[in-house]
Amino acid sequence: MIGSLMRYIESKADEYVEDLRKLCRQPSVSAQGVGIEECAELLRELMEEAGISARVYPVKEGNPVVLGEVRGGKEKNGCIGFYNHYDVQPPEPLELWETPPFEAAIRDGKIYARGVSDNKGNVMARIEAVKAVRDVLGEVPIDLKFLVEGEEEVGSPHLPNFVKGHAHLLKADGYIWEGDGVDEKNRPVITLGAKGIIYVEFRARGAKRDAHSSSAPLIPNPAWRLVWALSTIKGPDEKIRIPGWYDDVVEPSDVERKLLEEAPFEEEEKKRELGLKEFLGGLKGFEALKALYFSPTATICGLDAGYKGPGAKTVLPCEAVAKMDFRLVEAQKPRKLLKMLREHLDREGFSDIEVVSYSGYEPAKTSPSDPFARYFIETVEKVYGNKPVVLPTTAGTSPIYTIRNWMGIPVASGGGVGYPRSNVHAPNENIRIEDYIRSIKFVATLITSYKPERLRKTAEKG
Amino acid sequence: MIGSLMRYIESKADEYVEDLRKLCRQPSVSAQGVGIEECAELLRELMEEAGISARVYPVKEGNPVVLGEVRGGKEKNGCIGFYNHYDVQPPEPLELWETPPFEAAIRDGKIYARGVSDNKGNVMARIEAVKAVRDVLGEVPIDLKFLVEGEEEVGSPHLPNFVKGHAHLLKADGYIWEGDGVDEKNRPVITLGAKGIIYVEFRARGAKRDAHSSSAPLIPNPAWRLVWALSTIKGPDEKIRIPGWYDDVVEPSDVERKLLEEAPFEEEEKKRELGLKEFLGGLKGFEALKALYFSPTATICGLDAGYKGPGAKTVLPCEAVAKMDFRLVEAQKPRKLLKMLREHLDREGFSDIEVVSYSGYEPAKTSPSDPFARYFIETVEKVYGNKPVVLPTTAGTSPIYTIRNWMGIPVASGGGVGYPRSNVHAPNENIRIEDYIRSIKFVATLITSYKPERLRKTAEKG
Repeated sequence: MIGSLMRYIESKADEYVEDLRKLCRQPSVSAQGVGIEECAELLRELMEEAGISARVYPVKEGNPVVLGEVRGGKEKNGCIGFYNHYDVQPPEPLELWETPPFEAAIRDGKIYARGVSDNKGNVMARIEAVKAVRDVLGEVPIDLKFLVEGEEEVGSPHLPNFVKGHAHLLKADGYIWEGDGVDEKNRPVITLGAKGIIYVEFRARGAKRDAHSSSAPLIPNPAWRLVWALSTIKGPDEKIRIPGWYDDVVEPSDVERKLLEEAPFEEEEKKRELGLKEFLGGLKGFEALKALYFSPTATICGLDAGYKGPGAKTVLPCEAVAKMDFRLVEAQKPRKLLKMLREHLDREGFSDIEVVSYSGYEPAKTSPSDPFARYFIETVEKVYGNKPVVLPTTAGTSPIYTIRNWMGIPVASGGGVGYPRSNVHAPNENIRIEDYIRSIKFVATLITSYKPERLRKTAEKG
Repeated sequence: MIGSLMRYIESKADEYVEDLRKLCRQPSVSAQGVGIEECAELLRELMEEAGISARVYPVKEGNPVVLGEVRGGKEKNGCIGFYNHYDVQPPEPLELWETPPFEAAIRDGKIYARGVSDNKGNVMARIEAVKAVRDVLGEVPIDLKFLVEGEEEVGSPHLPNFVKGHAHLLKADGYIWEGDGVDEKNRPVITLGAKGIIYVEFRARGAKRDAHSSSAPLIPNPAWRLVWALSTIKGPDEKIRIPGWYDDVVEPSDVERKLLEEAPFEEEEKKRELGLKEFLGGLKGFEALKALYFSPTATICGLDAGYKGPGAKTVLPCEAVAKMDFRLVEAQKPRKLLKMLREHLDREGFSDIEVVSYSGYEPAKTSPSDPFARYFIETVEKVYGNKPVVLPTTAGTSPIYTIRNWMGIPVASGGGVGYPRSNVHAPNENIRIEDYIRSIKFVATLITSYKPERLRKTAEKG
């Protein structure tokens, strides 16, 4: 059965590629508000054509969410959910694209388009898998849920509320997140979590206009206030100085440590590429990976005050701004930490500095021992024929916590269409057609092999 | 004699105004390299017409200096020098000018032109004074020196070397600097010194390109390095933390304290205008003025790193830059302090931070008790008929140290054409014609009343 399904998918490759190109030709740049409604509607149509009941949900002051559902089998057969996004990064700088970003040109077995890897190739692979399964088997043997948002590239500002308000439509045994892909050595990459984040802007203000710096003995300098405030947040030893900040940090479990030890880490290449003699604090190997995935960070992303042009200008600025992100690890809570940050500044004498919060994401992880995660990992290995690289979390951030933490559903990402030269967020974004077809095969296998009762047994065995 | 000279000057007012307008119509924007050579030549011609032997001295990779000389009397009659500059600030933003900046339009008894107050009105008043004295008396009774540079508005980068190389041509009993003018209450303002300055740029570097902030556990962040380094330079108590920095700071003398006590200080108005409830550290009255004129400063003029646009961008910047000026007071030495700054950073563990030095000016002061200064102050009072405000120094910086410190010549500034609404460095720069004529009268009085032997007696009396 699986063999004929795989062959069927191969035979339909051209059609699947054309569907993806159609989706890629529809711009959907959330940061610029371009083509969003049209793309949501096109996506709904493509889902309906594949036999997925789909509906576009308007979002107040936001971009619509597309929900899809397949009621394939009886309820006992289980349910798998998929999270994707139909919005894409801005295509600029346009002059660096070899073919226009929304042409979806094919060259050397690759499709070039903005969003083809992040994330339209993945959502399309999942839709085509449903179509193929229905074509070959007549029906999908399990239930499926599709959650496709249109604001991922601008920080998913409305997703948390949407998930809260539509939880009854989103229930599933496990969710497959955006997708990932393969690494340099064609090993499939699976990630089981994400760090959280607080992104804040610090604003210090002085006089109501810039002044000549000769008045410095009399006029407060917000650039100094900012520097002094920031220096209480983290010290040259790279330790965050806010009391209690590390209280909820959880060390990697034994299984997670083992995954890190097995994870490939091209550290010399990474250092060379960044022009670094060594990593921060001389970290190497396992310790570097552990820091990358398991330590909270406090990063100054931007500083802005006064004169920034060439040469000298003797100005005393009236405003100074810093942007910072704090990456959080399990079980740190954004709201609690934001409050600690404010209290810390007040305690240190910096009540004058305003803290503007731009976003807060919880960290979230699914245990590598979770039965759904284990089913997912095994299926990836089976289809790709290669032992996957399993990362207990990413160093970055994604809104998986809405599903993982709030709904208590295991979440994994993998089996996607990307590869190391996909140029995600860059000009000439592309995927290899063979990766796309394999991803369709993977999803088709995942939904036809799923047996929730086996998972329960796996869980009982531990 | 003085009476007829004053009347003669009044009778020639229209001619003197036209000469000044001619000089103002010649643009000479040093920052933009516009009209410099032409203005130096025009100035030379105007000086020659007034009977001043003038020569344009080319400056390698800089703007020419115009030197003028009057060998009026015998040597024993003494010699007064004048420092001015013929370059002007850029006129932008042009749309805010009511009449074009190089038209020199006359409205309501005022001349409007870029540079008319800073500093062409002053140099022209001095030239016209020579012409008037020669017209009325047949000759100038003393020697005069004119030093007119073309780079004051860009920090006088070549003046120090020029003064060193031409000291033999610049000797005088005393120098009158740019000019100043009158305050809100028509009191003539005299300044007897200037603070020094070091202007530096701190550059911190990390990886060879910006990185995603999720890599923060591994990649050094130059914005943090910069913040930590700066926080070792000055603390929230506003004290500079570099050991030895205050060693050469000299407290105001009794005479200087008395001048500060007498100096008008519209502190409530200044606070209101700046939107401040109080000055830094709650300073008031005499203590505020003392801080303004007698304390060294360390000012962050600019901060620049990473993302400065709206909203959030999770970037780890590869470079961070701060611009700072340090104002120096007598007897701090720029070179010594720059070395202390570098050594301090090294000692604190910030050898990685590059310090680029843009300029170093020594602080310089002439004692209010100096006989030449006293002659100058008395002459201002006589011509203006109003007790002058005498400030022992300005809070700002000027290259007077080249004459005061290096050549040991007393220097004072005053008797100039400015008034509080001259809009120096701003659109609609202007002077009142009456102030211009009075300034010519003042200079004519200064050079015809000068008796060096009386100064010697003043000195002996103490």
